[in-house]
Amino acid sequence: MENYLVIATFVGAVLAILFAVVMAKRVLGFDEGTEKMKKISASIRQGANAYLKRQYTIVSVFFGAMFIILCVMAAFSMLTWYVPFAFITGGLFSGLSGFVGMKIATAANARTANACRTGLNKGLRVAFSAGSVMGFTVVGLGLLDISIWFALLKYAFGCTASEITSAMLTFGMGASSMALFARVGGGIFTKAADVGADLVGKVEAGIPEDDPRNPACIADNVGDNVGDVAGMGADLYESYVGSVISASALGVAAFGGEIKAMAIPMLIAAVGILCSIFGTFLVRTKENATQKMLLKSLSRGTNFSAVLIALVAFPIIYFVLGKENLGFYFAIIAGLLAGVLIGLSTEYFTSDSYKPTKNLASKSETGSATIIIGGLGLGMLSTILPIVIVGACVLVAYFVSAGNLTEVGGASAGLYGIALAAVGMLSTLGITLATDAYGPVADNAGGIAEMSGLEPEVRQRTDALDSLGNTTAATGKGFAIGSAALTALALVASYIEKAQEVGSDVDFSTFTVMDPLVLVGLFIGACLPFVFAALTMDAVGRAAQSVVIEVRRQFKAIKGLIDGKADADYARCVDLCTKSSLKEMILPTIVAVVTPVVVGLILGVKGVVGMLAGATVTGFLLAVFMSNSGGAWDNAKKYIESGVHGGKGSDQHKAAVVGDTVGDPFKDTSGPAINILIKLLSMVSIVFAALVVNFSILG
Amino acid sequence: MENYLVIATFVGAVLAILFAVVMAKRVLGFDEGTEKMKKISASIRQGANAYLKRQYTIVSVFFGAMFIILCVMAAFSMLTWYVPFAFITGGLFSGLSGFVGMKIATAANARTANACRTGLNKGLRVAFSAGSVMGFTVVGLGLLDISIWFALLKYAFGCTASEITSAMLTFGMGASSMALFARVGGGIFTKAADVGADLVGKVEAGIPEDDPRNPACIADNVGDNVGDVAGMGADLYESYVGSVISASALGVAAFGGEIKAMAIPMLIAAVGILCSIFGTFLVRTKENATQKMLLKSLSRGTNFSAVLIALVAFPIIYFVLGKENLGFYFAIIAGLLAGVLIGLSTEYFTSDSYKPTKNLASKSETGSATIIIGGLGLGMLSTILPIVIVGACVLVAYFVSAGNLTEVGGASAGLYGIALAAVGMLSTLGITLATDAYGPVADNAGGIAEMSGLEPEVRQRTDALDSLGNTTAATGKGFAIGSAALTALALVASYIEKAQEVGSDVDFSTFTVMDPLVLVGLFIGACLPFVFAALTMDAVGRAAQSVVIEVRRQFKAIKGLIDGKADADYARCVDLCTKSSLKEMILPTIVAVVTPVVVGLILGVKGVVGMLAGATVTGFLLAVFMSNSGGAWDNAKKYIESGVHGGKGSDQHKAAVVGDTVGDPFKDTSGPAINILIKLLSMVSIVFAALVVNFSILG
Repeated sequence: MENYLVIATFVGAVLAILFAVVMAKRVLGFDEGTEKMKKISASIRQGANAYLKRQYTIVSVFFGAMFIILCVMAAFSMLTWYVPFAFITGGLFSGLSGFVGMKIATAANARTANACRTGLNKGLRVAFSAGSVMGFTVVGLGLLDISIWFALLKYAFGCTASEITSAMLTFGMGASSMALFARVGGGIFTKAADVGADLVGKVEAGIPEDDPRNPACIADNVGDNVGDVAGMGADLYESYVGSVISASALGVAAFGGEIKAMAIPMLIAAVGILCSIFGTFLVRTKENATQKMLLKSLSRGTNFSAVLIALVAFPIIYFVLGKENLGFYFAIIAGLLAGVLIGLSTEYFTSDSYKPTKNLASKSETGSATIIIGGLGLGMLSTILPIVIVGACVLVAYFVSAGNLTEVGGASAGLYGIALAAVGMLSTLGITLATDAYGPVADNAGGIAEMSGLEPEVRQRTDALDSLGNTTAATGKGFAIGSAALTALALVASYIEKAQEVGSDVDFSTFTVMDPLVLVGLFIGACLPFVFAALTMDAVGRAAQSVVIEVRRQFKAIKGLIDGKADADYARCVDLCTKSSLKEMILPTIVAVVTPVVVGLILGVKGVVGMLAGATVTGFLLAVFMSNSGGAWDNAKKYIESGVHGGKGSDQHKAAVVGDTVGDPFKDTSGPAINILIKLLSMVSIVFAALVVNFSILG
Repeated sequence: MENYLVIATFVGAVLAILFAVVMAKRVLGFDEGTEKMKKISASIRQGANAYLKRQYTIVSVFFGAMFIILCVMAAFSMLTWYVPFAFITGGLFSGLSGFVGMKIATAANARTANACRTGLNKGLRVAFSAGSVMGFTVVGLGLLDISIWFALLKYAFGCTASEITSAMLTFGMGASSMALFARVGGGIFTKAADVGADLVGKVEAGIPEDDPRNPACIADNVGDNVGDVAGMGADLYESYVGSVISASALGVAAFGGEIKAMAIPMLIAAVGILCSIFGTFLVRTKENATQKMLLKSLSRGTNFSAVLIALVAFPIIYFVLGKENLGFYFAIIAGLLAGVLIGLSTEYFTSDSYKPTKNLASKSETGSATIIIGGLGLGMLSTILPIVIVGACVLVAYFVSAGNLTEVGGASAGLYGIALAAVGMLSTLGITLATDAYGPVADNAGGIAEMSGLEPEVRQRTDALDSLGNTTAATGKGFAIGSAALTALALVASYIEKAQEVGSDVDFSTFTVMDPLVLVGLFIGACLPFVFAALTMDAVGRAAQSVVIEVRRQFKAIKGLIDGKADADYARCVDLCTKSSLKEMILPTIVAVVTPVVVGLILGVKGVVGMLAGATVTGFLLAVFMSNSGGAWDNAKKYIESGVHGGKGSDQHKAAVVGDTVGDPFKDTSGPAINILIKLLSMVSIVFAALVVNFSILG
């Protein structure tokens, strides 16, 4: 049966990629519109290409160095020789996911704008198809990488289950490292350009967003592509792959090396791809659709896919693991449900249809200080629901898996259940990512419509698509954050397995929370997301400041610019953002990779476990807090722009713009990067476990 | 020997109180100044009195209800009958500490202003004497309460060591509950008045701080007394008592019920009082002293006391515990040192003499959004040093105590060492609190000088004293936060002891971090400080908004007010702040008391331990983050006011005022309250342990 499982996974991966190709062809079949639109789109594409090229150059230095380090460790038998290569492919595929997403997004932006000239439905089709390319490329490449490595290691090299999972966790580390670079670099770029453009353009010069007179407007649109698209692609590739391989690794522990337990996560993922493809066919709307109808059509697709996978997973677990292990099925369902619920909670706290954001908008009446205090409070308060949801999901997934089992049982089965919950949560990533990734495409389309002076109704239509994108992005964030917490927990469990395997003499059955090494690890781990958030926020601040200075300079130096009689030097702003974001992305990533090794070498295995637990817990909290504060500020501003509390241009609106600007790095740089951070910490710890076990000072 | 130890403690307590009385007499011997000064001081005193009276009325309802609950539990043999009474006295003494501090501070404010008319040294003497009254009242009452209960339980009722510590932990819970009410209520009052006064007065009407035309100016000064004085008094009473009793409780566990291990923390505290009294004699300066010389004179006092206690603790440990247990001495020193180092780190991150705050001030050049982002980043980054310091202190205290011991050893000795480190850190609280508490007195004196139209050099002198107070407050915060983390850890250990004692069947030797109940507890606990911070910040926001509306109304309704021709209705603003802060303080405190019981009843003992660990870790981080962000914004604003980046009234200054306003609830409401929260959670868990062990659902 095993061979069929691997083949099924492979088939799923290939289907996803084929579907992505079909969708890409469909997108490219549309017309790019007027010459001006083509020109603007080309500048954006050019900027994004240049950025990615330089980013990959820098990242390849890091990957080269890590490759050498891993080879040295392999030479000293602390790792197998597969590990360095697995690490490289993980990074490669993760980068490729981002690259493909960026390519299609920059190809689709003008086409979406042009399609919106005909009507809303056509616009939705182009943008959503582009999102689908991204969604299915991510899941397809992820599963392809996993199934190829699995097949190679198992059939070509005859590795044991444990050797296979070790190598696979390393390519997870490669994917996570790449994702962190992409998220941090892209996040700094997009927010530096955005904040810089807003501060001088909107606040000081008083010109609207995406106005071609603003020298940073092309940079702002490039930013959407390198941050919200390429960054998100690499990020979710990492989440997807991470959840599958951590579950596979724990499956080995739970079922004593049986391949079927390793294959289940892959199989669920593969079937999830099929369900997602079916779901995409339901996304369509009427020509004169309202925003509500648009949202409904997207929800129809994602909900259908979710229900379908919930139905299909049952026979899979039943026939592959046997009816005595049906508990794992409920773990998958718990994960699926938790993802949806976290998304709803995010929507409640950040959408201007509900009380929290409406309340926040009203705080603009007493100025920017009160709206900042209010937004910070809102974000902090909004952590309760996701915490309770993830907590309940962990308990359910653990106990349905650990109890009532004949073949396996106990702690390792329970942890496998937690990991499967993460897989369940991400099983429909193909379509949820599609509904998420189409947002930046619509955003860019709006920018192009504005800059090329299209009819106002085109901008209205792209705005309708874009604002919808904010809601779907909230749902997407729910999945990303929730799955990160579950996957990180699973990886901590994998770390303990690994430490024992490489000969740690720590007795894991007498491993109390009150052990001072665990406690100190907990403190340090809990501190890491704070430090990481600080570093990335500061980086955005610094980069934005340089953009502000440049834009101010251009307004002064280029005569006639503000009257629309002269062209701004867009390329200079793009170049500035590229340089500063690439410079700034290095330190946070290095911190993330080096800290677990240093902590391990000082505090030993116990300290590392404490550190990972601490980082997972506060990382989850900070990520939710920062994403929701940022989202709520953004929507409070939009709510005021809709005409309440004085409307656009009022003092209240200015106060809300301050909130939105503070929220930008919160929700698009630091928050999402923390999700990657907490998994990367675990993976680095796993890969360097042998080093730590042999050379630690205190543990 | 035991009897002598108890008598020594009692003598230390009485000496502290006598010293406070002497100091109070000295303060009252000074003249209150002009009629106008007397009148203003009387209004402030009246407002503060009225507030405290109403606060104590509300709090007594809570204490009454808790008393009944504890009596019911005692009736069902889940507690001893001493517990309800111990709970009440803890609350009473904590409240009394705050009350005495407030009384002397409101008596000293006009006297300090008047003394500053003569010269700086005289002003310092009055203000510092007032601070000393507060400092020595807190430690005196704390130690008195402890020694009386100890003597009563041991000699009058013949209780066992374990019964004694149980009752003492309950009065810790009483003290912490009272402290939380005082900190939260006072913190909301002071910041609502401050923010409200600033937003309308400084920003909208453009009048200076403490201008008598501002209807909220008396409320602002009342706030300093009920928040920064009465709130801080109750808070540090709680910290002091908490550290001593948690160490005593762990001493019982470590030394198998020997009284001498219980008495050591009390004895160190008593000797610390003597060292502090000697230290105060060194605080004096020349008439024409610069700010640097002033600071030096304060540091001389605190440093001398710290060195003295470091010397004297050695023979105490040597002779009482024996030379084989000298390890505990080094635990005390580790704590003492850690407190100083955290204070230095706080100073580095928040003083405008160093790079971080100077950098922050420069961010005002690009507006309020960038200075907010910068301040948040600074605060988050500033968590590293305290985390490393506390981590190192925990490791040192644990290992010097747990290892190399003949009589005792192992984990319980190590945990006792951690608790002793907290006692060491707070041993010189008498003088450190004196240098901290004189700040609000000087602040008030400045307000009175302004309002009663004294000569400009008087305000300059009070400003010099006040600005110095900001630095000493930073040091004070270091001690408060550091000791909170260590005490909270000690209390978690006490909880585990207690749970075993009341018959929990959890096997604490197989209690891994990866247990799902521990993990979920960890998530929930980590979330609590976020929720608590959100609730308190929102409360400040709401209360401030009501003040803003009232001040705006008065400016409109009272003709001639802005021209100084009519009087504002000060009492109305005071009343408004009183009402709203008392209303708002209830929910956060109830959350803190109820959550541990609810979590315990659902998740059981394991869940509670996870919750306490999570709350301690993120609570520590959030408290440091919020205090330091707030402090840095405050000083960045003052730095700009000194003339850089455009100086007072510039756009940069306005941006910095926004930062400062956001920082107000950070550093004076939410941040300090979190210190109390993390200990209160543990104490509630300990008191309700029997309930949880008998009735929990999952654990």
